[in-house]
Amino acid sequence: MRLAWVFGFALMVGAAGADTVSTFKLDNGMDVVVIEDHRAPVVVHMVWYRIGSADESPGHSGIAHFLEHLMFQGTKEVAPGDLSKIVSAQGGSDNAFTSLDYTAYFQRVASDRLDLMMKLEADRMRNLNLTEEDVTTERQVILEERNERTDSDPGALLGEQMAAAQYMNHPYGTPVIGWRHEMEALSRQDALDFYQANYAPNNAILVVAGDVTPEEVLAMAKVHYGPVPPSDLIKPRIRPTEPPQLAERRMVLADERVAQPYVIRTYLAPERNPGDQRQAAALKLLAELLGGNPTTSVLARALQFDTQKAVYTAAFYDGLSLDADTFGVIVVPVPGQGLQETEEAMDAVLTKFLADGVNAEDFARIKAQVRASEIYGRDNVQGLARTYGAALSIGLSVQDVQDWADILQDVTEDEVMAAARMVLDRKQAVTGWLTKEEAAQ
Amino acid sequence: MRLAWVFGFALMVGAAGADTVSTFKLDNGMDVVVIEDHRAPVVVHMVWYRIGSADESPGHSGIAHFLEHLMFQGTKEVAPGDLSKIVSAQGGSDNAFTSLDYTAYFQRVASDRLDLMMKLEADRMRNLNLTEEDVTTERQVILEERNERTDSDPGALLGEQMAAAQYMNHPYGTPVIGWRHEMEALSRQDALDFYQANYAPNNAILVVAGDVTPEEVLAMAKVHYGPVPPSDLIKPRIRPTEPPQLAERRMVLADERVAQPYVIRTYLAPERNPGDQRQAAALKLLAELLGGNPTTSVLARALQFDTQKAVYTAAFYDGLSLDADTFGVIVVPVPGQGLQETEEAMDAVLTKFLADGVNAEDFARIKAQVRASEIYGRDNVQGLARTYGAALSIGLSVQDVQDWADILQDVTEDEVMAAARMVLDRKQAVTGWLTKEEAAQ
Repeated sequence: MRLAWVFGFALMVGAAGADTVSTFKLDNGMDVVVIEDHRAPVVVHMVWYRIGSADESPGHSGIAHFLEHLMFQGTKEVAPGDLSKIVSAQGGSDNAFTSLDYTAYFQRVASDRLDLMMKLEADRMRNLNLTEEDVTTERQVILEERNERTDSDPGALLGEQMAAAQYMNHPYGTPVIGWRHEMEALSRQDALDFYQANYAPNNAILVVAGDVTPEEVLAMAKVHYGPVPPSDLIKPRIRPTEPPQLAERRMVLADERVAQPYVIRTYLAPERNPGDQRQAAALKLLAELLGGNPTTSVLARALQFDTQKAVYTAAFYDGLSLDADTFGVIVVPVPGQGLQETEEAMDAVLTKFLADGVNAEDFARIKAQVRASEIYGRDNVQGLARTYGAALSIGLSVQDVQDWADILQDVTEDEVMAAARMVLDRKQAVTGWLTKEEAAQ
Repeated sequence: MRLAWVFGFALMVGAAGADTVSTFKLDNGMDVVVIEDHRAPVVVHMVWYRIGSADESPGHSGIAHFLEHLMFQGTKEVAPGDLSKIVSAQGGSDNAFTSLDYTAYFQRVASDRLDLMMKLEADRMRNLNLTEEDVTTERQVILEERNERTDSDPGALLGEQMAAAQYMNHPYGTPVIGWRHEMEALSRQDALDFYQANYAPNNAILVVAGDVTPEEVLAMAKVHYGPVPPSDLIKPRIRPTEPPQLAERRMVLADERVAQPYVIRTYLAPERNPGDQRQAAALKLLAELLGGNPTTSVLARALQFDTQKAVYTAAFYDGLSLDADTFGVIVVPVPGQGLQETEEAMDAVLTKFLADGVNAEDFARIKAQVRASEIYGRDNVQGLARTYGAALSIGLSVQDVQDWADILQDVTEDEVMAAARMVLDRKQAVTGWLTKEEAAQ
C-alpha cells in the first residue's frame, strides 16, 4: 500500500547535533542532497519529483498518484512488481507517496546496497513499461484506496468538500487521490503522458541520508543518474491563484456513519517561502498555542477544562506547500452538545485570544516544545531526508530548512498576534459541521 | 461597449408562424443557418464560435471575452476600430458577446449589405492584427468593464463567489469576465494563442436571419467563408465534471454598499440536451411556477401577498448551456426583516410546494404564458437568430429548438414535481445572503 499525503514523523529520542548536509547538482540538472549520519550502517535513498496533484491538468485528477502506483510496474530490466521484491530480498523496505506538490520514491536499506537502489530508481525514471492490463488492475487498487480512505470516511469527505470550497481558483481544491469519476477514466496514455512530461532528472531531487559520505553519493549518482538525459518538457509551476475571497463558506455534511460530530474551520493562509519564513513561523506558533497540545493549549484549556464543552480540540498549520496553505481549527463537542453552541464556544475562545494576546508563560513553553520537537525530528534520518526533500520540492533551500528552527525561536509575541489577526479572517474561511443528523431543510 | 452574457430579448407583438429555417454545412465545416423573414428589408448576420470562457485554460480567465474585444482591432484590410464604423456608415449596428459556452459577433444591416458583412467577418476570422498597444489599451477597457459590472456591485460579487462554490470541479465556477488578477496578466500572445486555437470555420456557425433566401446566403457564404481553411487545432469540448456534491455551501456577503439585502440560492441543475429536453422543460416550467411572474407565482403569492414578508421574489432557470446549469430562487425581504426569517419563509414555501404539488389552474396559466412568450419571441428576427445560434453552439439541433415549445406544452404536472424533487436538493445548493451589516464574528 502506497502512502498518499501522509505526514507525521516517528520520533526517536536521542542525542542530536546540527545536520551535516551537502548539496550538488548533476550536469543534467538533477539536485543531490546528502545528509550524513554514521550511527547505523543504513541509508535512506529518495528521489523526489517536483510534480504533484496540483500540477495535473483539469479533468485528470488523481493521475499523479496513479502514476506513483504504476511506477512499481517495472521496466525493460525489472519485471512488474519485482522492484519491491528486490529491495525486500536485500533486507530493505520501499515505498512512495504523492502530495499536492510532489511525488517521492524511497528505499531504506543497508548502506552497501545504495548502488543497487540508484540503479533501480534511475532505470524507472525513464524506462517505465506499462501494459493495459497493469493499468486496469492498478486502477482498481487506487479506486479501492479511495473507498477506504475517503468514501468510507465522512470526515475525509467533508475535508474534500471543504477544500473545494476553500480554493475558488487554485488546484489545491482538488483531492490528491482524485475525484472518483475522473479516476475511473484515467488511462495508460494519461499515465504515460504525465510520466513523459514530468519525470526527468532536471525535475528531480535525490536525497540520500545515513551512513554515506557526500563523495560516495556524488560518484554513484554520476554513474547511475548522470546518463539520464534532461527533458525540455518540464514547465514552470505557475498555477492559478485565488481571487479575493469575500464571503465565508459554510457547510454541513450529514452522514449516518458519523460517530463523533465536530466543527472544523480552515482559513486560507500564506505558506513558507524561500528566504521569507517569519510569517509562516508565526502561524506555526499560533497553531501550537491555540491547539497544538492536547491539554495545555488555549482551546484545550478553555473548552476541555474550564467550560467542559469539548472532548478534543486542535489547531493545525503546516506551510510546507508551494502555494497558499490553510490554517485550521477543530472542536469535538461533549456528547449531546449541538454544533451551533460548539462553534460559538470556539469563536468565543478565538475572539478572547485576539483581545488578550499571547500569554507569556504559554509562549515560552510552546517555544520550548517546538525546539524539542525540532531536535527530536533531527534525530530521525528518514524524517530528516523527508524534511529536506519536501522543502526542496516546493522551492525552499537547504538554508531555509536549517534556518527554520531559529526563526521559530526568534518570532515575537507581536508577530504571532499580527499573524493571528491576518489569518483569522472569516471571509477567507470555510466552516464545516460534521453531523450524524440530517440537516434541517 | 460589448455585451457579456446578457440575455432578454426585446419582445415585439405581432403575427407569428413557424420559423422558416434552412441549414447547410460548407466544405470547410462551417455550419450555416438561414432564418427567412421578409417583412422588412433588414438582415441580422451572426457568426457564433463554439468557444466560451469555460474553455479557457486555468489561470487565463477572461481571455475569451478579451479576445472578443480585440476582434474589433482590425486586420490587414481593416484599420483598428474601422469595422464598426463601416457598419455604422452603412446604416447598421454591430456588437458581440461572450458567454460561458460561446462567443458571437453580429451586425444588423439593410439586407443588400449582407455581402459586405460576410466579407468583413470572414476577414477577421483568420486575419486579426494585434499590436501590443491595442492589447494594453483594450485590457484597460475590460478591467473597467469588470469594475462597473462586478466590483462595484455587491450582488454581482456574491454571484461570483457563489458560482465558485457551486462548481467544485467544472469551469463554470470561473466568471466570464475573468478574475481581475488574471485579467491584468492577459497578454497579446495569450489572445493570439486563443484565437489561433479556436477561431476557424469548422468551429463556427453562421446565422443569417431576415430578408434573404437560403440560396442567396449559401452562395454568398461560399464566396466569403468558403475559402477560409479549416483548422486541425479544434479540440472536443470535454470539460471536467462535478464530483458528488455532499454538503450545501452557505455564505454571507456583507458590503456597506448593499442597499437591498436578499437571500439567493442556486441548485445544480441539468441542462437541455440534444433530443432530451423534457427534464429541462419541466425545470423551466417549475421556475415559471415558483417565481416567473411578479404577482401570480407561488413565491410571490405566499411571500409578497399572503404573509407580506417579501418585496420581490423570483425563480430562474435557463438550461441553455453545454454542461450542468443552475436553478435559482431569490427573495428580497420587506425592510427590517432579517435574512434568517426570510430564508425560513422561502424554505417554507418550497416545502409546502413539494407537499402540495402543482395547482392545476396555475399550471394551465403558466403554460399559456410560456406559449405566448415563445410566440412573441419568434416574431423578433434578432431574438430568433440568437436563439438558434446559442442552441447550436451548445450542441442542440434546429429540431431541438423547434421542438422546445411543444415539449414545454407537453410536460405534465408529475414531471414538474419529479423535477422539483430532483433539483431542490440542498446538498447540491449554494445559499447566499447579501447584507449591509458585517456578519457576526
